[in-house]
Amino acid sequence: MTDHPIDENEPEASAIAQLTDALALKDREGLLGLMDEAHEADVADQLEQMSSEQRRAIVDLVPEAVTPDILAELEDEVLEDVLPRLGDQQIADALSEMDSDDATAVVEELQDDRREDVLSAMPASDRRAVEDSFTYEEETAGRVMQREFVAAPDFWTVGQVIDHMRAQGDNLPEIFFNIYVVDARLHPTGYVPISQIMRQPRERKISELLEPLLVKIPQDMDQEDVAYQFSKYHLISAPVVDVYDRMIGMITVDDIVNVIQDENTEDMLALAGVSDAGLTDTALSTVKSRAPWLFINLLTAILASFVIAIFQDDIQAVVALAILMPIVASMGGNAGTQALAVAIRGLAERDLTRANAVRAVRREFAAAIMIGLIFAAILAVITYIWFGEVEKLPQVVFIAMIVNHICAGLSGILVPLGLKRVGADPAVSSSVFVTTVTDVVGFFAFLGTAALLLF
Amino acid sequence: MTDHPIDENEPEASAIAQLTDALALKDREGLLGLMDEAHEADVADQLEQMSSEQRRAIVDLVPEAVTPDILAELEDEVLEDVLPRLGDQQIADALSEMDSDDATAVVEELQDDRREDVLSAMPASDRRAVEDSFTYEEETAGRVMQREFVAAPDFWTVGQVIDHMRAQGDNLPEIFFNIYVVDARLHPTGYVPISQIMRQPRERKISELLEPLLVKIPQDMDQEDVAYQFSKYHLISAPVVDVYDRMIGMITVDDIVNVIQDENTEDMLALAGVSDAGLTDTALSTVKSRAPWLFINLLTAILASFVIAIFQDDIQAVVALAILMPIVASMGGNAGTQALAVAIRGLAERDLTRANAVRAVRREFAAAIMIGLIFAAILAVITYIWFGEVEKLPQVVFIAMIVNHICAGLSGILVPLGLKRVGADPAVSSSVFVTTVTDVVGFFAFLGTAALLLF
Repeated sequence: MTDHPIDENEPEASAIAQLTDALALKDREGLLGLMDEAHEADVADQLEQMSSEQRRAIVDLVPEAVTPDILAELEDEVLEDVLPRLGDQQIADALSEMDSDDATAVVEELQDDRREDVLSAMPASDRRAVEDSFTYEEETAGRVMQREFVAAPDFWTVGQVIDHMRAQGDNLPEIFFNIYVVDARLHPTGYVPISQIMRQPRERKISELLEPLLVKIPQDMDQEDVAYQFSKYHLISAPVVDVYDRMIGMITVDDIVNVIQDENTEDMLALAGVSDAGLTDTALSTVKSRAPWLFINLLTAILASFVIAIFQDDIQAVVALAILMPIVASMGGNAGTQALAVAIRGLAERDLTRANAVRAVRREFAAAIMIGLIFAAILAVITYIWFGEVEKLPQVVFIAMIVNHICAGLSGILVPLGLKRVGADPAVSSSVFVTTVTDVVGFFAFLGTAALLLF
Repeated sequence: MTDHPIDENEPEASAIAQLTDALALKDREGLLGLMDEAHEADVADQLEQMSSEQRRAIVDLVPEAVTPDILAELEDEVLEDVLPRLGDQQIADALSEMDSDDATAVVEELQDDRREDVLSAMPASDRRAVEDSFTYEEETAGRVMQREFVAAPDFWTVGQVIDHMRAQGDNLPEIFFNIYVVDARLHPTGYVPISQIMRQPRERKISELLEPLLVKIPQDMDQEDVAYQFSKYHLISAPVVDVYDRMIGMITVDDIVNVIQDENTEDMLALAGVSDAGLTDTALSTVKSRAPWLFINLLTAILASFVIAIFQDDIQAVVALAILMPIVASMGGNAGTQALAVAIRGLAERDLTRANAVRAVRREFAAAIMIGLIFAAILAVITYIWFGEVEKLPQVVFIAMIVNHICAGLSGILVPLGLKRVGADPAVSSSVFVTTVTDVVGFFAFLGTAALLLF
C-alpha cells in the first residue's frame, strides 16, 4: 500500500523539511534515499517549492538522484536550475529513456550551445525522434505528440494483434489504450480500444471491431484546439497525421490535462494583466511580467484624467462631483470585467460562437440596462440622502450610471468578439480596451451630465 | 473517414443553420437524420448554441432524436430545457443505458417531484446504482465515479483474466484501462494496465505484473482534489474506496477533464465577481449572477468616497487632486488584481503552499517596492510636466503611489492566503477585500499626503 500526500495538512511541507535538513547536513545518502522512495511527481513538486538556491544545492550534491522520471516531471523554470548541473551524458541517457514528448520538453529548456553536445551523446534513433519534434512549431500537435504508438493492418485477427504485442515487448509505448488501424499507406482508418480486443476471441477480425476515428489531429494544430477536441469527444488518445494524412504519432489525454491547465492559467493571468508568470519566479521577473500592463493602464488612467481635467471648473464649483465620480467609474469597470470574463471563458470553451454571438450581445445589452437601472436607482437614493437634491446630483448619478453600465456591458462582449474576429487572442488584449472604455466613459458621462444639468 | 468540425470557420454554425431550417419546415425526418448522423457531442454542442426556444421546439417535434448518448452530453442548463419534454419511460430507458456517473448527472437535473417517477420506471439494479450515488455529497468522488470497473484477485493468471473478460462481455464497462487487483475483502492492492496484460504470456501471474496504487480516492474527496491527483500523477483511472477501504467504483480521466474545466471556469469568473453564470443563461439570470458582487463593490466604492469626502476642502483648494487621484487608485487596483490572480492560480495548482508561502509574500513585497518606485517616478514626472511643482504635487504622487503599490501587492497575496487558512475559498472572496484595500488606501494615501504636504 502506498501512502500519498492527499490530505489537507500538506505533508509535502514535511517532506521538503526532511530534504532541506539532509541538505544542511550534506547527507548524500539521506537525500538519495528520500528522493528514491518518493514518487517522481512528488519529488518534482518538492523541488519546485524549494528556493532556487536550495534545489541547485541538492542537485550539486546528488546529481544522480535526478532520475529520468523526475526530469520528465519538472516544470520549465526548475529545469533551468537543474539541467546546467547535470552532465551531458546523464541528460542524454535520460532523454533516451523518456517517451519522445517528454524528451522534447526537456530539450526545449537546454541552452542552445549545449543542445548539440547532449543530442550527439544519444543513440542515433532516439536523437532523430527528438530532432524531428523540433521541426514542428511550439505549442502544436507535432510538439505535444509522442512518436510511439501501436498500429495494425485491418486484416489481422485479435490473436495476431496479441501475438504481435507479446513479440514486441519493450518496443511498445509504456502505456497505451487504443490500437490504431492503418492502411498500406499509413493512413489511419479507425481504432480499437484494447479493452475491446481483450474480451474478444482470438479468431475475431480486427476489421469487425473497428471504431471510426472521431478526430485526426493535423500535425500543425494548435495545442489549445487539440485540447478542445479531447474535452469535447472525451478522447483518451488521438492519432496525429502529417500533411499526407499519414499517421506520425499519437497524443494521450494525460498530456492534454497539462495543456488544459497551462492554457487556463494563461487566460486567467492574461485577464488580470499578468504575462507568463510562475511562482518559481524571482521578484525581478515578477516585475517584468506585470509592468507592461501597468504601463498601459497608466496611459489609460491618464486619458481618463484628461477627461476630468476638462471639467475641473465644475468640480471646483461642486466638490461633491469629485466625491461621487470614482463610484460611477468603479461600478462600470467592474461590470465591464464581469461581462469580459464571461465572454472570454465562453470563447475558450467554444460556448460563444458565431452561431450565438448576436444573441449573447443582445443578452448583455438587456442585462446591462437592468443592472444599470438597479444600481443607478440605489446610488441616486444614496446621493440624495448624502447631498440632498440641491445640485440635481441624484439625477446626474442616475443618468451616468445607466450610460456607463451599458457601455461596460457592450464593450465587455464586443471587444473580445472583435479581437477574435481579427485573429488576436481575446484573453490577452481585451482588458485594456474594456477598462479604457469604462474609465473614460464613466468620468465623461458623469461630469458631462453634471455640466449640462448643473451649469 | 469522418470529417469533423475542427477548422476555424466554425462549421457548427452551418450545422445549426441546417437544424433550424428543418425546424422551420417542421421537417421531422430531416431533423432525425441530421441528429442521427452527427456525433452526440456535436449534437449536444449545437443544441447548446441554439436559443432556449429553438431547442425546446426541436425536442417537442422529435423527442425520440434525443438518444441516451446525446442526453449524457448535455450541459445542465440545456437539460433543464430538454428533460421536461421527454417522457418518464424514455428518460428511464436512457438512464439504464448510461454509465452510472452520466446517469447521476442527468438525474440531478430532474425536478424533485419527477425524480421518483422516472426512477421507478428503471430496472431495480440500475435504479439502485443511481440512488446510491445520491448518498454522496455533490462534487465529491462518490458522485463523479462510475460503479462499473474490472477487478481480479491477484492469484489469477493473465489467461484467466482474459477468459473472464471474454465471458463477461457486455457486463464490463464500455471502455477501461486498468484491471484492479483486490483482496478477499475488496481492498484494492494494485492495478495492471491492460496494455501490459495483452503483451504477456497467458500463464503469467497477475501478481507479477502488479503496479502499486499511486492514489486511492476516498469517496468523500472533493472533486477539485481528485482532479489535482489525476493531473499530478498523470492518472488514467483511479479506484474509489469507501470508509472501510473497499473499492466501490472508479474515476476515469475523461470525466476529470470536465471537472478541471468547470473548476477553472468557476475560479476565473469568481475572480471577476461573477457567480455561476453560463452562456445559455437569460438576461435575468445574468443580472442575478452579477448583481451581488456589484452591490458589494458599490459599498466599497462608497467607503472610498467617504475618504475623499474627508478631504473635500483640500480638493476645492487644489482641483488637480481630483484629477490625479483616480490614477493612483486605478494603478493600485490593477497591481492588486495582478498579485491576486497569480496567488489564486498558484493555490489552485498547489504551487503556492505552506512550504513556500513566506518566500512568495517576500517576493511580492520586493516586487511591489520595485513596481511602486518605477511608476511613482513616471507619474511624478508626468505630474510635474502637467501641473508644475508649485503645489508639491509630484512629491504627493510619488509617495502615494509607493504606499498604494505596497498595500496592493501585499493584500493581493495575504488576503487569499488568509482566506485559505480559515477555510474559505480564496477564488470567491478575495477580490472584495483586495479592491477595498486598494481603493481606500489609494485615495487616503494620496489625499492624506497632499493634506500634510500642501496645507
